[in-house]
Amino acid sequence: MLVTTLIERKRDGGELRPDEWSQLIAEYTRGSVEDYHLAALLMAVYLNGMTPAELGALTDAMIRSGARLDFTGHVVPRIDKHSTGGVGDKVSLVLAPLAASCGVAVPMMSGRGLGHTGGTLDKLESIPGFRTKLTLDEAKRLVTKIGVAMMGQTPEIAPADRKLYALRDATATVEAIPLIAASIMSKKLAEGLNGLVLDVKRGSGAFLPELERGIELASTMIALGEERGCPTVALLTAMDRPLGHACGNALETREALRALRGEGPADLMEVTYALTVEMLLLGDVSDDPVAARALAESAIASGRAAEKFREIVAAQGGDPGVVDAPRTLAVGTHTHVVESTKAGYVAQIEPRAIGKAIVAMGGGRQRVEDEIDHGVGFVIDAKPGDRVERGQALGTVFGRDVQTRDLGIRTLIDAITIVEQEPDPPLPLISHRVTREGAVATAVRSDEQ
Amino acid sequence: MLVTTLIERKRDGGELRPDEWSQLIAEYTRGSVEDYHLAALLMAVYLNGMTPAELGALTDAMIRSGARLDFTGHVVPRIDKHSTGGVGDKVSLVLAPLAASCGVAVPMMSGRGLGHTGGTLDKLESIPGFRTKLTLDEAKRLVTKIGVAMMGQTPEIAPADRKLYALRDATATVEAIPLIAASIMSKKLAEGLNGLVLDVKRGSGAFLPELERGIELASTMIALGEERGCPTVALLTAMDRPLGHACGNALETREALRALRGEGPADLMEVTYALTVEMLLLGDVSDDPVAARALAESAIASGRAAEKFREIVAAQGGDPGVVDAPRTLAVGTHTHVVESTKAGYVAQIEPRAIGKAIVAMGGGRQRVEDEIDHGVGFVIDAKPGDRVERGQALGTVFGRDVQTRDLGIRTLIDAITIVEQEPDPPLPLISHRVTREGAVATAVRSDEQ
Repeated sequence: MLVTTLIERKRDGGELRPDEWSQLIAEYTRGSVEDYHLAALLMAVYLNGMTPAELGALTDAMIRSGARLDFTGHVVPRIDKHSTGGVGDKVSLVLAPLAASCGVAVPMMSGRGLGHTGGTLDKLESIPGFRTKLTLDEAKRLVTKIGVAMMGQTPEIAPADRKLYALRDATATVEAIPLIAASIMSKKLAEGLNGLVLDVKRGSGAFLPELERGIELASTMIALGEERGCPTVALLTAMDRPLGHACGNALETREALRALRGEGPADLMEVTYALTVEMLLLGDVSDDPVAARALAESAIASGRAAEKFREIVAAQGGDPGVVDAPRTLAVGTHTHVVESTKAGYVAQIEPRAIGKAIVAMGGGRQRVEDEIDHGVGFVIDAKPGDRVERGQALGTVFGRDVQTRDLGIRTLIDAITIVEQEPDPPLPLISHRVTREGAVATAVRSDEQ
Repeated sequence: MLVTTLIERKRDGGELRPDEWSQLIAEYTRGSVEDYHLAALLMAVYLNGMTPAELGALTDAMIRSGARLDFTGHVVPRIDKHSTGGVGDKVSLVLAPLAASCGVAVPMMSGRGLGHTGGTLDKLESIPGFRTKLTLDEAKRLVTKIGVAMMGQTPEIAPADRKLYALRDATATVEAIPLIAASIMSKKLAEGLNGLVLDVKRGSGAFLPELERGIELASTMIALGEERGCPTVALLTAMDRPLGHACGNALETREALRALRGEGPADLMEVTYALTVEMLLLGDVSDDPVAARALAESAIASGRAAEKFREIVAAQGGDPGVVDAPRTLAVGTHTHVVESTKAGYVAQIEPRAIGKAIVAMGGGRQRVEDEIDHGVGFVIDAKPGDRVERGQALGTVFGRDVQTRDLGIRTLIDAITIVEQEPDPPLPLISHRVTREGAVATAVRSDEQ
């Protein structure tokens, strides 16, 4: 294959044929096409885009580069959820057991913290003994037996994506919508799903802050899923402030455990229920959103969801007792309550600053091989729009030592903007529902949280 | 240095500062910045362009990556000529001794054949014993002693350019005007010149066929030269047909030797004289183009130019007797005269097809390490616009064996288009003169050849 000719065509705004994408990715995975070839090609893709046919071919090639979860003979509908990443987003920890307890199977493959956003694997690993590194066989056994597995991407799944992602990260070609869509969907489609729900974040703390770009990404991923026999729906949700109160791995897991017992913050529950409802509809557990919502609420209220999470923890090596004792999860011991220095309204809580501070405090990775401290983070009491008085607690910092605590204090003070006049409301918590038919505005107002 | 941040800025249409270009190229030359980084960056440059400040910084960084010819104390003005490459373009072999015999010093660093275009080094090496691999010290000594050296790029000159060029070749980022300009000018400016004349080819056989792109390239190189204290002038010349009659290394050297004796084809002589006049004007040998032209013509007529070439050949390891016996240069022994199969007019002689055939016949390289056969090629009698009769000789093929001869025959037949009606004239031989003030049309009509 004359790879230079392919780069040249893409450079000039042309299109590569499906067989060309297929061969290119296969040879790149094998190592007979070089990183520098792909680096030039990806930059051309970044600047010139891809046609839907090209995108499909790239996605298929990345799926084919590795193994797929094979659920032949498994009859329960398998539905997963993917979030584009946020701060305080512990939805997966509540949703996976919740949806499974309502009758869909959830083969959930998650990631680690990336940049300022947290990762489900890191949160789960704040539970002592919890193993996120499952083999495909183990995952299949768990999904078949208890209806859910919560795991990391295995080396067998889409190795081309892993290699390409590392290259994109080094060559400033991460934020291209087709490349993001192909990366996410190649991994999700390898899970052998019957349906997929996407939580596409928008706002200052999102990977793609602008609404239009979020909808474009959602639509691109939906088309990829639907064309490959995986019905896909997306919700656009707010990431102009952290979701819930807790930010940081163990603190978020504590909050998720409380949410499973019916004590979750309103915004976290609303997003979790809305995504779960979509999963139940895709899995044909229900054909009515109102009934599906009632089912999900009763799974929380009855303790069935919490019981499912106990099963998960036990099956994956942890002590299920933790579900009933969230406070046993270790958190940073150097704490400090940050108080408002003036009366006014909370205008903004900047999620990006919070997320970056958690990394800097040791709760996220600067490099892939870094060990992290799961206990550091924040519990932020304030929400945008709140009225606060001088001296009122805004949130608590959890450092592992004096230095990380002080860094957290400075960050929290800077991240929260207090103004005198009542500010504009923040983004609607759930603003759009996107399906193959297009995007529909379905705002849950922020004051309904 | 966060190279990814630099790529990102270039990707988004931004500008890198001179110190950033400088550090980037230095670290790339050292190997601490990777090929894939540069591949992505170069594609962003290809698609988004560079500002003049960036281009200057890149050029300076490439010059600084290696050594420069140091002519401290040398008083004769040093002027070189560079051609963007063509088929049948043996101008350098005539011009270097001619200009040197007229009183400018010519430290000429040339290249090998590239793609379909020939290279001066390959032509010179068809002279038995001729050494093109000179050290910088040898080159300096020759320029000081006989006023001219004809050599290849030494490893010490602009190593960053050599590394970058190989990468561009593999990643389809060769044809970007700023990158072409920086590559050419970094090598030329390292020669320690007082002036530079550019022969920018246009037409179907040129690297950049379109006139506008040729003028853009010329203007870009002129700005780079002038800003660095090297007055630079360009002529736009025709490459919609081969220059002269001979195409192929030894055949072209034979033609060049005859040209030095005053027996050169009109088009070759016209281009050679025009470029030489520019060199003499830049070198202040004359301030009047008409006088400079007369000086050059007399250098040919008197034999001074041929005598200078004898000095070059002798100084660089060859037998100077060859200058007076061009036919002693070995050429392909499997010859065939191609005749016109019909009466009509020559509408086209496609230089690209001719150039590619020479490579395929063994007279150029598929890979850098290939040995070549200097003797293969063509002597094409016909010129576009010529009236030909059925059975009239169009040209002679020189193969090294039956296979290469037959390939040459097929190529020559295909490359020459004969039509019934008198065709439009080919491109003017010399159509524009470009200086720092801009491009001026100065067409030498093609029928004045």
